[in-house]
This record gives sequence, C-alpha cells and structure tokens, in this order.
Amino acid sequence: MTNIQGIAASSGIAIAKAYQLVTPDLSYTVKEIDNPDNEIQRLEQALEVSKQELEKIKAHTLKELGEEHAEIFSAHLLVLSDPELINPIKDKINNDKTMAEAALEDVANMFIGMFESMDNEYMRERAADIRDVTKRVMAHLLGVSFPNPALIDEEVIVIANDLTPSDTAQLNRQFVKGFATDIGGRTSHSAIMARSLEIPAVVGTKEVTKSVSQDEIVIIDGIDGNVVINPTEEELNEYKAKQENFAKQQALWAQLKDEPTFTADGEQIELVGNIGTPNDVTGVLNNGGEGVGLYRTEFLYMGKSELPSEDEQFEAYKSVLEQMGDKPVVVRTLDVGGDKELPYLDLPKEMNPFLGFRAIRFCLENEHVFRPQLRALLRASVYGNLKIMFPMIATLEEFRKAKAILLEEKENLKQEGHSVSDDIEVGIMVEIPSTAVIAKQFAKEVDFFSVGTNDLVQYTMAADRMNEQVSYLYQPYHPAILNLVNNVIEAAHSEGKWAGMCGEMAGDPIAIPILLGLGLDEFSMSATSILPARTQLKNISKKEMASYKDKLLSMSTAEEVVAFVKEKTE
Amino acid sequence: MTNIQGIAASSGIAIAKAYQLVTPDLSYTVKEIDNPDNEIQRLEQALEVSKQELEKIKAHTLKELGEEHAEIFSAHLLVLSDPELINPIKDKINNDKTMAEAALEDVANMFIGMFESMDNEYMRERAADIRDVTKRVMAHLLGVSFPNPALIDEEVIVIANDLTPSDTAQLNRQFVKGFATDIGGRTSHSAIMARSLEIPAVVGTKEVTKSVSQDEIVIIDGIDGNVVINPTEEELNEYKAKQENFAKQQALWAQLKDEPTFTADGEQIELVGNIGTPNDVTGVLNNGGEGVGLYRTEFLYMGKSELPSEDEQFEAYKSVLEQMGDKPVVVRTLDVGGDKELPYLDLPKEMNPFLGFRAIRFCLENEHVFRPQLRALLRASVYGNLKIMFPMIATLEEFRKAKAILLEEKENLKQEGHSVSDDIEVGIMVEIPSTAVIAKQFAKEVDFFSVGTNDLVQYTMAADRMNEQVSYLYQPYHPAILNLVNNVIEAAHSEGKWAGMCGEMAGDPIAIPILLGLGLDEFSMSATSILPARTQLKNISKKEMASYKDKLLSMSTAEEVVAFVKEKTE
Repeated sequence: MTNIQGIAASSGIAIAKAYQLVTPDLSYTVKEIDNPDNEIQRLEQALEVSKQELEKIKAHTLKELGEEHAEIFSAHLLVLSDPELINPIKDKINNDKTMAEAALEDVANMFIGMFESMDNEYMRERAADIRDVTKRVMAHLLGVSFPNPALIDEEVIVIANDLTPSDTAQLNRQFVKGFATDIGGRTSHSAIMARSLEIPAVVGTKEVTKSVSQDEIVIIDGIDGNVVINPTEEELNEYKAKQENFAKQQALWAQLKDEPTFTADGEQIELVGNIGTPNDVTGVLNNGGEGVGLYRTEFLYMGKSELPSEDEQFEAYKSVLEQMGDKPVVVRTLDVGGDKELPYLDLPKEMNPFLGFRAIRFCLENEHVFRPQLRALLRASVYGNLKIMFPMIATLEEFRKAKAILLEEKENLKQEGHSVSDDIEVGIMVEIPSTAVIAKQFAKEVDFFSVGTNDLVQYTMAADRMNEQVSYLYQPYHPAILNLVNNVIEAAHSEGKWAGMCGEMAGDPIAIPILLGLGLDEFSMSATSILPARTQLKNISKKEMASYKDKLLSMSTAEEVVAFVKEKTE
Repeated sequence: MTNIQGIAASSGIAIAKAYQLVTPDLSYTVKEIDNPDNEIQRLEQALEVSKQELEKIKAHTLKELGEEHAEIFSAHLLVLSDPELINPIKDKINNDKTMAEAALEDVANMFIGMFESMDNEYMRERAADIRDVTKRVMAHLLGVSFPNPALIDEEVIVIANDLTPSDTAQLNRQFVKGFATDIGGRTSHSAIMARSLEIPAVVGTKEVTKSVSQDEIVIIDGIDGNVVINPTEEELNEYKAKQENFAKQQALWAQLKDEPTFTADGEQIELVGNIGTPNDVTGVLNNGGEGVGLYRTEFLYMGKSELPSEDEQFEAYKSVLEQMGDKPVVVRTLDVGGDKELPYLDLPKEMNPFLGFRAIRFCLENEHVFRPQLRALLRASVYGNLKIMFPMIATLEEFRKAKAILLEEKENLKQEGHSVSDDIEVGIMVEIPSTAVIAKQFAKEVDFFSVGTNDLVQYTMAADRMNEQVSYLYQPYHPAILNLVNNVIEAAHSEGKWAGMCGEMAGDPIAIPILLGLGLDEFSMSATSILPARTQLKNISKKEMASYKDKLLSMSTAEEVVAFVKEKTE
C-alpha cells in the first residue's frame, strides 16, 4: 500500500481499479535497419490499428455527445489517410533507410513546424491534429498502449496529470467512480467538474500518475484528500466504513434539504448553487439550493463551431428559470477570454490572458455577441425570478455602458411586442480589486454585488491560480481579501443592497464562519456543498462571529486567520 | 504634410529624416523556373551580401557594446555558412525546380519547426536565429532593403512598430535624434528608454510606420505627443520655435538644479530619480535629483550568458553610492521574470507571466541568486546612504523571509571581516493590491514603502499594461488607485515611516498635485522629470491639495478625478 496526500476536491469515497489517462513514454532508440519493407509494413499496421480505435471513439462520442464533439475525430481520421503525410514517411524509410519511428517523427515534425509557423488559426489546429494522431501511431509502433477514455466500459478511478475539458467530455460518466490528478487545486477545472458530477476527487497530488500502475486497486478519499494505492485488507475495510459513514452523513444532510438556513442565533442566510447548464439545476434542487447564485453561461458557447443563436439561448435560460420556479436565478453574462477560448471568435493571442481582453471587456466591444445574449435573457425573464450580473467590471463606466445596452434592448423587445419582466435586478461580479476598493461608489448604481473570489484572490495577490509555482500565494483567507470582501458588504448594506459570493470560498468550511461574521447575505457554491454548509451554519452564531470582525481584519497573515477561526469554531 | 497623434513619451522636439526600422514586405509570387543554376546563383549572392552586412554589424556592436552583445551576430553568421541548411535549399532548387525564395522559405521553416518543437531552450534560440537570418537573405533575394540600425551614421528619427531592448542596444545613440512607434504607452520599455536617453519620443501612434516613408523629414513633438510628417515651411518654423522655447524652458528649470524642493506653502518634498545602471547617475545629478528612489538592478543581469558575480555587483553598487555621496540610494533587489527573461536562468514558460514566478518569489526559491546580490549590497553599504527594497511583496511572510536572509548575510559578512553599515533601511515596493490593502500591518515591520504604480495599476485594474486592447483600463487616476495609495501613506505615517513612489505616476503633472495632497514624502521619477516637477511644486499648496483629499477619494471615475485636478490647478 502507498498513501498519497493531495487536495480534497470533491467529497466522498471511491474504490475501484486504476485507469491511467496518461500519454505513455514514446521515446525510442534509433537503430539502423536492413529491411525497409518490414518497416513500411510495421507503419501500415500501426496506422490501421490507430484508425480502428479512432473509428470506435468517434462512434462512441457521436452517440454520447453529438455530432459537434465527434468532428475532431473525423479530422484525426483524415490525417491518417492523407497521402501527403504518409507517402513522405514511406519515402524516408526507403531512401534514408530510417526506422519507421524516426521517419514518422521527422515528417510529422516538419508538417507541424510548417503549419504552426503560419499565421492562421485553422492551420495551427491542423498542426495540433497531426501532433495528437502521431502520438497514437507512435504508441502502436512501440507496442505500448494508448489511453482511450471514451472506451472505458468498467468501473474505474481515472488517474491523470490533469483533466482538460476535452478529456472530461470524453469520459463515460457511468463508469468513472472518481479521479486523482497530479496538478490543480480546489478551483481548477477538474475539481469543479468533479463536484458537478458528484464524484469523489483528489487533485494536486504531484505524484499520483507516477505511483499508480494500470489496474491497481485505488481508494480516493475526497473528504480528507487522500489516495491509497493497493490498500491492505484492513485499509479496505476502514475506507468502506468511512464510505458508509459518509452515506449516513449525506442522509442526515438530506433531512435539511427542504429547510431554510438558520444560524445558531436565528439569523436566516441564503444558500444557493453554481451551475453551468440547465441540466445542473436538478443537482441544485436535490441538494436543497434556495436559488442559483451563478449561472455560468459560457458552456452555451463552448464546443461549438459558431455563436449560439438568440433562440437557442432563450430556451436554455427559460429552462433554468422554469425549473427554479420563483427561486432567484443570477445569470452571469458571457465570461469568455482568459483561459476560456472560443475558436470561432478568433480572440487575440495574449501574453497575459488573465489580464486581457475578456468577459465584459470583450462584450462591450462585440455587441453582435452581447446583444443577442441580453435579448435572450430579457425574453426569458417572464418565466421566473431573473437577476443579471456582469463579469469583470473594473470601472463604473463599464457598468453604465453595459446597463445602457441592456435597457436599450429591453425597449427594443417591448416595441417588437415581447413581454419582459420589470423586476430584473442588475448587478456585478466583484472580482477585480479596483471594484472592491471603491464598492461604495458602485453600490449607488448596482442592485447587488456577487464577489467572485477565484479571480479576486488571483488579482489581489498577483498570482495566477493555475500556476503551480505561485500557488502558495492563492490565499483566500489573506487579511487583504477579508478587508476587500468586508468593504463590499459594508458598501452594499450602506445603500440597502445585498452582497453575495459565488467563488469557491463561499462553500469553504473555514471561510463560512468568517463570511457570516462579515455579514454576507448570499452564499453560492457547488450543489454538493449546500447541505454541509446548512448543517455547519446551524451551529455557528452570527453575533459571535461578527464580534471577531475587527480582530480578523487587522491580522497580518492568512495563517493567523485560519488558526483563529479553527480555535473559535472547533 | 501629415499630422499623427500619439502618446508623449519623452519631452522635447526633434527634426530629422525618417529611418524605418521595420521588416520590409517579404511576400513573393511563386513562379516556375527554367534555370536552376540561375536561382542558385541568386541565392549565393543574397547569402554573400547578408554575410557582409552581418560582419559590419558585428564589428560595430563589438566596438560599441562589447563582446557579449556581438555574440548573437557570430551565431547568425554561422547559420549562413552551415551546409546542413544551405545544401538542402540548393537541392530543392535543383530537384524540384523551385525558385530560390520558395526553397529558402520551405527549408528554413522545416528547421525552425524542428528546433522549436524540441523541449530545449538552446535549440529554440537556434530556431530564432534561423528565422532572423532567413528574413535578411529573403530581403536580398527580393531586392528590398533590410534595416540595419547598428549602421546608422547620420542624424535620423527612428520609426518602428515597437523598439525591443535588443533594438535599442543596437541603436547608435549619437545619431538617433528621436523616435516614434506604433504601439506602447508611457510605461513601455521604449518610452522609459527614451527618457533615460533624453531624446524626444512619441509612442502608441498606431499608424506611424504606415504613414512615413524612408528619408522623409519628420518632426517628433515629445511635449504634446505629435508626429508631423513632411512638414510645410510654416510648420518647420513653428516647431523650430517650439524647440527653442523648450530649450529656454530647460534653462529655467536648470536654475532650480541645486535648490531644494518647496511647495507654495513652504512644505519640503524629496524629488529623486529612477536609474538602471551606474551610468544613469550623471543624469540624475545633472537634473537636480536629491537621491535615487529606484535603482533597477535587472540590467546587471541582462544581455549576459551567466549570473553577474558578487564582486561585479559590488562594484556597480559601490559606484552608484559613491557618485551619490550622502544622498539616499534605494536599490531594488532583482525583479526578474514577468516580461523580463534571463536565458541562463531557464525560467519556466508561463501562461500569465505578470501573475507568475518573478521578483521576490523567484529570489526566495533561488537563494544562490539572491544571497550574492544581498552580500554585494551589504558590502557596498559603507560607501554611501543605502536603502534596500524588495519587489513584488504580496505577504508579510515573504518580507520576513527576505529580511531574515539579509540579516543572515550581514552576520556572515561581519564574521568574514567585512564592514557593513548598521543604518541600512529595509523597505518594500507596494505594487501588489494585497500589500496596499493591509499596508497598516506591513508598516509595523518595514522601514519604508515605495509604491510601484506601473504594476499596482495593472493588478488593481486586472489589465496587462502592454496589451493594447485593454490599455483603456490602465488608469493611474482611478479612485481605487488613489484610495490604495492613500492607505499606504496613512499606514506609513501612523508608524512614523516614510512613503515614496517610484512608478511613472510620480513624475506625472496631473498626479503630482494629488499625491502631494495625500501626503507622499518622496517622488521618484525619470531624471528629466525632476526639474519640471520642482517647478510645478513651487506653485502648488500642499494644504490646499490636502483639503480636496476626501472629495477625490470618494469620486467614481478617473475622468472625474482628472477634470477636478485640472480645474483646481490651472
């Protein structure tokens, strides 16, 4: 048995055999060859096996995810049949007496270099296709197995360096019981995905891919952030017991599903959920969410070849609003750019995308993208309790411009004969330090604030949260963050507005007591965090936490803050 | 005549003919060829002319800048003589009946692709060499001229899209009278360089390279940010008069050179200069600087193939301290990473380098780099009035660690028999929002603050200051920035410490009255801004500006702030 510590990213215990989603070692020793025909035959076999695999993956993807997702595999299959690529490899084997591996690598690199040097997004994607496909063929030449996550058909724990959105799209959710990754933190894509799928996950283990072999039995402890490899009988029993306890705990939490949220001293708090698609609403309702605090609309725009139409968006927003009934739904307008690319928008390559042309900055300059979304939202507003929120607001001018466009479209829609609700609150994400600092000036003009801590922390600390080397600076409990959050809440209340939080911090058991003391009105979190948070809040007094406010705000380090909160709440 | 508006980056008026520092159009029409021998001859000629040019540039660089800078041209010359590159081009011409341009491009791209795909910094640099050299050969094949800034030998105005550090290193400072660029702002590298060279410059014109032809007469108005192309007789006279007025103005400023700085109501202010090398000290003293507020030590580490030794650094620090006598010299420890790369350190490629592993973050993890610098500083401390400042401090832990290492080295040096001053103040740059927010907690432990507005603005507004598309968000007058700066100054004063500023904002005529009112103690700026600032301060009352403080801090937009300050100071 081996025990690896990581970051608990999604609660629960999973036990199954390991599936290594890792590119195998594709290095080889260059050897002289005598028989070129033999090499060409090896190449053709590797190409054939690769084609068969890709056909299977394509069929599976088509069935599970639809035509658009399957397109990429059609492109990969085309590469494998392209004589412009294959013939030069064969020529090289014949003419230079090169082994198949070296001929494949040289010719592929030449094409990749050529396509990448072109100033054209389409050609650069072709370079990526060739790179992907070459790896698969190389693996077959070398006789090592290449992972095919789409073809998983038994219960497994996925082990990976990291999971990209395209990896997760391929995973067969029925069979993946949990996962563990080398990199990432609580706010990385893979962690958020695990919580939305409600499967246990441990991330940021640094070494799990090196420590686990294919098919070994693995335990994922998403409660304490442990991975146990090759457990002993005793450990298996221990974790099965923990699994049962967790199930019991979940049952207890479930009893609070239809209860409102009260603190120990009787203050009512609003606990709501973060969602990415209309399908996620079920998760929020099943977990007792009192609303949606953040609907990330980017997913409507992703994995497609063109912008979603106004009607397509309208249907999605209407579906969420109808499912939620009279419960509030806060929809964030498009937050694209940064780490979220949309190929069909041809966004500029940037040196620092997190400090770049994204979200509201992009939308205000691209009204042909922004207006249809606002129109779809306004049309959907009559089907529920809609609130609209603009992301990445750094100046009041930006908010004023965005709101003016919204009001213009409202007028347009009314003139076109549509009905539009007159009670839509319009607020902003507070995720840029400038906005948190002058929240008081903003509070006069917005209807509400929602603090986006993932970005607010990264900008306030000037540390990319995806960059392992500065991840020690991603400190949500840093006194500077607490001061900024406090400033936002005080500003909101001074103008009779409400302040929520929709970053990961809002569902964090250490942060919850602090935020309660600062007076946060609405906590929006992953659906699975709602019931644990409701349980926790029952046992904390808001008055007591408020009495620690000044002390917490004048502390010097995050470490002091955490130690103090643990002492007061344990 | 054409008149182009840009951003005034360095004061003064320059009139001379244009030198286009722009890669020419290297596109060509693919034609069939009959006579490969003819193509090979054309290729050989182009190679020969390119070699001759590179030899000249290399000789010039060797003479002006020394061996290390000349090395790159040796590498370029090697590429041009490499049969591994040249023979395949000739083969392609012979075998495929390809014109020389196409053969050159295809073969070069193949090698560039190959080298770039290797995970090796050295090989990637070879790819860059091939790319550079190929452009020069291509230009000669096409019969278009290729710019050779190192060979300029008459008075010119340089016109460029942007000037990189390697461009400026090549410029013959004797003949370059001014420059204008398409991109960049007041804080871009080229702007800072122009002020340090004391030559007029206009940046961010968007279109100057397209509007000016080689050898056309150009006027650079670095006072108002204008570029006049092909001026009329009348305009020439007008700008010659403006040039004379500016000279008179400079003469008036010069009268204040040895005066202390007093405001209209008799408050004394400290005006100091920013420097990059010991050579810059003369500029600070000639412009009446009362000290050095920021010595950027990065230049000691740049354009080299290995780390500077402790002794080499000691000599540089000692030289600056001795030249400045008893005037204060604030030295910033190494701020590398971000946009400043050092090839020999093999820094990681990052997705968001401005939010990455840089400055103190890098130094605390690389004590073999950090300790020699601290030792060199400590040894130099006995030669003047040294203050040490750590960059990019985001948490108190970082400051405590850096200071502990400094004290350790001080002990070590004493034990080794060196003398070290006991009066060295140790402070920090405030350029990360977290530190500005909890400045009060920091003020208990540091000896001084120096606000670095270039970075503070970019993090507070979450906008990369080098990115044209979000440059509208680079707002030093944004009320959030003023609130953070005010917080830093109040925190310093509450603990009896001093607060300075060494970002570009400190020398800005709009910002100076505001900062005076907030109570800033020390203003550190480009040397050429010192005397204008001293003149300006003589005419402003600190008491009056302080009376506007609360009003300014509660404003909503940068626009309001600017309008108010202009009204009150004009």
